[in-house]
Amino acid sequence: MWDKWISQIQQGDVRALARAISLAENESAGLLEALASIQIPNKPVIGITGPPGAGKSTLTDALIGALIAEGKSVAVLCVDPSSPFHQGAVLGDRIRMSEWYTHPNVFIRSLATRGALGGLHPRILEITDLVKCFPADWLLVETVGVGQSEVEVAGLADRTVVVLVPEAGDEIQTMKAGLLEIADLFVVNKSDRPDSARFQSYLERMVQEDRTDGKIIPILPTVATEKQGVENVLKALTELLRSPEQKERGDLLMIEKAKHLLRQHWLRKLDAGKMKASLREAMASKDFNLYAWISRYAD
Amino acid sequence: MWDKWISQIQQGDVRALARAISLAENESAGLLEALASIQIPNKPVIGITGPPGAGKSTLTDALIGALIAEGKSVAVLCVDPSSPFHQGAVLGDRIRMSEWYTHPNVFIRSLATRGALGGLHPRILEITDLVKCFPADWLLVETVGVGQSEVEVAGLADRTVVVLVPEAGDEIQTMKAGLLEIADLFVVNKSDRPDSARFQSYLERMVQEDRTDGKIIPILPTVATEKQGVENVLKALTELLRSPEQKERGDLLMIEKAKHLLRQHWLRKLDAGKMKASLREAMASKDFNLYAWISRYAD
Repeated sequence: MWDKWISQIQQGDVRALARAISLAENESAGLLEALASIQIPNKPVIGITGPPGAGKSTLTDALIGALIAEGKSVAVLCVDPSSPFHQGAVLGDRIRMSEWYTHPNVFIRSLATRGALGGLHPRILEITDLVKCFPADWLLVETVGVGQSEVEVAGLADRTVVVLVPEAGDEIQTMKAGLLEIADLFVVNKSDRPDSARFQSYLERMVQEDRTDGKIIPILPTVATEKQGVENVLKALTELLRSPEQKERGDLLMIEKAKHLLRQHWLRKLDAGKMKASLREAMASKDFNLYAWISRYAD
Repeated sequence: MWDKWISQIQQGDVRALARAISLAENESAGLLEALASIQIPNKPVIGITGPPGAGKSTLTDALIGALIAEGKSVAVLCVDPSSPFHQGAVLGDRIRMSEWYTHPNVFIRSLATRGALGGLHPRILEITDLVKCFPADWLLVETVGVGQSEVEVAGLADRTVVVLVPEAGDEIQTMKAGLLEIADLFVVNKSDRPDSARFQSYLERMVQEDRTDGKIIPILPTVATEKQGVENVLKALTELLRSPEQKERGDLLMIEKAKHLLRQHWLRKLDAGKMKASLREAMASKDFNLYAWISRYAD
């Protein structure tokens, strides 16, 4: 069945993609085998993250608009733990993103989160790869940057936009270890607020102060509700994706993805009845040796 | 070299055992292969755990004395995070266990802990298996029951003694999930204190209240400093080890050990340069597929 669904997704069937994501969320069997047998387009993933209230969804909405204006198509995955409903976030985003939800060149889907801290769904990498098969030009993943998810998003997104607001001064002090390190691009949203310029130069010092590689991380002001500055964000993202280091970056990302998928593969293997059966069979032998069994079973 | 050291350990060479443990602590290469190639005696491990200050070391000391009096030999591993020194706990236990430290039938060794919470050393299972090769009749492992180590000790010890003191009433409420569940035997130490009887009946209710299997967990009073009640503990432990369910228990323990060792095996594999080399090689191919690579590499 997966083969058929994936072929429908490749042809741009929105319903097939929505159903496939639901099945993947529910850990339906056969997904990994299906993904192993197809060519997944090497499409960059743009992560949009930041603390709650920074305006990530509004910025995402504005980015969709700018892309549509350029004649592009967009797929968006939202991971929003602030929704109190299981799966209910679909409705939430329908409201927040009403402008684009029904546009033919836009696919928007919210994913349920796991755990109180809003951790990414354990199948997020597989789901993202499913969405890559859908013929959209851009792929955005919006996550709330709390708990550990900002670190996880680094292994998921080719490029990460961290959205902040001028009031975030104190927040940055505490979250800097996580959010500051993964940003390829900062957006200071709601930059029409009076203390915005001061915050932006403060952020600049914070961001560059520990860098030893001399790389400059762009910091761009926006007023996402007014769509101000959004073209600049899109332009900066496009440049990042075209930069010579993008290939190297993609390779590093692939290693992180591989580690994550291997860990999951092994965790499944650890809980399998097959493992216990193999071990019990070995234990029945007179010259059973646990270490010898481990090296036989694990490799 | 490991083969030679293990053969020396099997002949009762204390220095060889001490050196082998140090090498295992420092993750010296070849240990797993050596353990895979020998017959490890199926010797039960007695875990002794409990909150700091309960008198675990004093009880262990008294148990050693009781075993020596019966003509038995004993090996003891101490995992003591309260020592501020890396490796310095050797000295600490030399003082606390002065009575037996130099006795020819006693081997005592402290292990460094990892992490602030005093987690067990990542090689604790392998180190314990090394000590099993040493010709001692009994093998005790003393750990401080804080953080997660009490859960870990359940996968390490065939039988677990939880040591408490009469004052521990409030503590029990908070730690019950961890310590109460793993106990095969409770020792209420310092039972000459006035509120001891009341505490013991309180503990009895706590312990039996949630049990549905009808099993009675012995609760034994001791005054370890005076060696009171220690013979009873030894007798109860001997009975537990002889009980018909011990075989089944050993099998479950083996599964836990296997899981732990498999997890470590895979974590090593995950960080290995070999993994990255294999992945990079696959990535160079035109029809690279991450999922196909995972299933090839992981199995």
